[in-house]
Amino acid sequence: MKTVVWQSLSEQQRESLLQRPAITAGENVTAIVKDIITDVRQRGDEALLELAEKFDKVRPESITVRQEEIQAASDRLSEDMKQALQQAYANIAKFHKAQKAKPLQVETQPGVICEQVTRPINAVGLYIPGGSAPLPSTVLMLGVPAQIAGCRRVVLCSPPPIADEILYVAQLCGITDVYNIGGAQAVAAMAYGTESVSRVDKIFGPGNAFVTEAKRQVSNDFNGAAIDMPAGPSEVMVIADSSADPDFIAADLLSQAEHGPDSQVVLVTPEPSIADRVADAIASQLSSLSRADIARQALGSSLMIIADSITQCVSISNHYGPEHLIVQTRNPRDLVPLLDNAGSIFLGRWSPESVGDYASGTNHVLPTYGYTKTYSSLGLADFTKRMTVQELSADGLLELAPTVETMATAEGLDAHRRAVSIRVEKIKQSRASTLKEA
Amino acid sequence: MKTVVWQSLSEQQRESLLQRPAITAGENVTAIVKDIITDVRQRGDEALLELAEKFDKVRPESITVRQEEIQAASDRLSEDMKQALQQAYANIAKFHKAQKAKPLQVETQPGVICEQVTRPINAVGLYIPGGSAPLPSTVLMLGVPAQIAGCRRVVLCSPPPIADEILYVAQLCGITDVYNIGGAQAVAAMAYGTESVSRVDKIFGPGNAFVTEAKRQVSNDFNGAAIDMPAGPSEVMVIADSSADPDFIAADLLSQAEHGPDSQVVLVTPEPSIADRVADAIASQLSSLSRADIARQALGSSLMIIADSITQCVSISNHYGPEHLIVQTRNPRDLVPLLDNAGSIFLGRWSPESVGDYASGTNHVLPTYGYTKTYSSLGLADFTKRMTVQELSADGLLELAPTVETMATAEGLDAHRRAVSIRVEKIKQSRASTLKEA
Ligand SMILES: [Zn+2]
Ligand SMILES: [Zn+2]
Repeated sequence: MKTVVWQSLSEQQRESLLQRPAITAGENVTAIVKDIITDVRQRGDEALLELAEKFDKVRPESITVRQEEIQAASDRLSEDMKQALQQAYANIAKFHKAQKAKPLQVETQPGVICEQVTRPINAVGLYIPGGSAPLPSTVLMLGVPAQIAGCRRVVLCSPPPIADEILYVAQLCGITDVYNIGGAQAVAAMAYGTESVSRVDKIFGPGNAFVTEAKRQVSNDFNGAAIDMPAGPSEVMVIADSSADPDFIAADLLSQAEHGPDSQVVLVTPEPSIADRVADAIASQLSSLSRADIARQALGSSLMIIADSITQCVSISNHYGPEHLIVQTRNPRDLVPLLDNAGSIFLGRWSPESVGDYASGTNHVLPTYGYTKTYSSLGLADFTKRMTVQELSADGLLELAPTVETMATAEGLDAHRRAVSIRVEKIKQSRASTLKEA
Repeated sequence: MKTVVWQSLSEQQRESLLQRPAITAGENVTAIVKDIITDVRQRGDEALLELAEKFDKVRPESITVRQEEIQAASDRLSEDMKQALQQAYANIAKFHKAQKAKPLQVETQPGVICEQVTRPINAVGLYIPGGSAPLPSTVLMLGVPAQIAGCRRVVLCSPPPIADEILYVAQLCGITDVYNIGGAQAVAAMAYGTESVSRVDKIFGPGNAFVTEAKRQVSNDFNGAAIDMPAGPSEVMVIADSSADPDFIAADLLSQAEHGPDSQVVLVTPEPSIADRVADAIASQLSSLSRADIARQALGSSLMIIADSITQCVSISNHYGPEHLIVQTRNPRDLVPLLDNAGSIFLGRWSPESVGDYASGTNHVLPTYGYTKTYSSLGLADFTKRMTVQELSADGLLELAPTVETMATAEGLDAHRRAVSIRVEKIKQSRASTLKEA
């Protein structure tokens, strides 16, 4: 890991130090994905089966995973594993249930009632990558909020063979539409539908460069589907003072580093001695990891920054905007009000990032690559949408009419003004005639 | 207006009837905008000035609007106009203040505390189109939530000369960074910055095809800026029963139609006689409008749908997902729980769309073109982002550890497991030694 002293850097050096490596999708990825999407839209299921053979080297027996297979997977799992997944499910459910929006009603002026109501997104699609190890945690992070939001249809796609852990969590989350499809073709199937896969309104989940590019392309198409958020390499920043345990910090940095060779790993501390001791601890912990090679690559481009104070650490973090931020300082909670751009924050020595990855209750789908400046940590809100409602009484409209009429006139919109004045006249007429009768 | 009986249509005919016309940006728009963005990124202010000359036929004296000019504009405005804008400001502020997210804290299991906190987006850019009439209402709809959210920097761009109404509202909303720039070049300036314009994190606001395309391009660039939502032509759907006033419906349909020739205008009713009377009322109201030509073009592609019941009207509306939905029925509030995909809903005979466009308090920036299925009505949330925070006690970690360790093992992530187990060991060691000492 490279160590730098923040104070010794120019403004420009600081800027380029915190710059993330460019993401280059590559022209060929764009073109390949475009062809895959076209193929799936034209030939449906047949294209899905052929593309699976071509890219995943396996032609699934069936696109749809049958209920009996889901049940069989759950029967095969160990009790320990089921209990762990249930515990994680319970915590994630508890935290996301608390995010339910309360209906909002405001009388902005007498007789003018404005409301905000939320509705679940009708149909959502969850993409779960395949690979050497299954990712049941990602099913939890997407499936639990979809279930709590009340989305009417939840579709899950994952390349075959789908691991028992994934099928078990799908069952926990009440997901019945599970499909043996991976890659860009899975995204295309969820966005446009095929004979087997019915289309969804919004697609969630991580994936490789092809999946990411497919999500980008369908989200740019008016007839495609919305997506959760832009994807980028995973990141952690650790802010530590002299009270921090170097072994813990090393373990946290390594758990980020093992995610992939492009993982971003940054330690910021006002204590040069902490940086030294963390470097030693990393060296001693690294060798015994099964994914040591991957972690070593990630560490190659990682950073230790010596700041002149904890305040400067905070401002470096706010500037960088890390996906995960671990705060191991004497009074970590004191820093929260000062922290700004981050996906998820882990406070104190007993809160490693892995608890948030799996089971504390927070969501592990987080904005990265600087998107923390504008995007939110995934939550219940991403599976719902807000509508507004307004209702005026006759008196409310009379009171508000001059304002609307004046503004509509300024904007040159006659019919807008008349939609108000035609009603005002009727109210006045009817009141006048009531008076006369009386 | 074309009238159809829903019951007489096949599934496919219904589908194609509610299909919106394709939006074709045109290859040349994409290319022109790409060049404009490149030019602004390379040459900054000089490019802005030249592009203004080229496209807007006016080279602004200065890119920045000075404070004295803003003050002078406000001095020139009539008291009536100021009062109308202040009233609208007050109502919009009241409704958006009520949207402030309360901090959320949940103990998901003993010793495991999860929180959700929100932060304002640091810098936002508001685009206000020019044209024959000024759009102060759009400044309110974007400027008020930006102010309430607490965005630290709010930038407003609009093509010169900027109307007094716009400058006055900018002042009401506390916006000090106002720039004489319009079109795609304004979007580029806000996304990447120039000598005069400092870059922002997220760009809001409507615009022509060039502005829309520029927003799309910068939002697709990792180094660009986020945007509010996809743009499309404006829409209204009216659900009416026999209790509705045909004159009011006609006025509402016309106020949508006058927005532009591509406006979508749809009436759904179970009463054929209402449709007939609305058609007559439109004919009699149309001729006196200053924008009659535009409205007439929009009405050319608009629809009256005869449904067999109010329930069917609701399901047609949910299928179409209109930007604006006006409900003029006997008991409009009864329908709200059944209504699903809509941007903003107007209940009852005294709630014309124009009150929401200007001053009821709701936001007039709404998803359109079917995006109501996944996107929200613009609100305070769009000017903020949510972060999560977690803090575990030693006991909380001990309790959660087996779950995290089991899941990390299943996912093949050693270092994730160790970040937990290394802490668990230390807790156990320290407790054992405390016991021994005791
Ligand atoms: Zn992780
Ligand atoms: Zn309008």
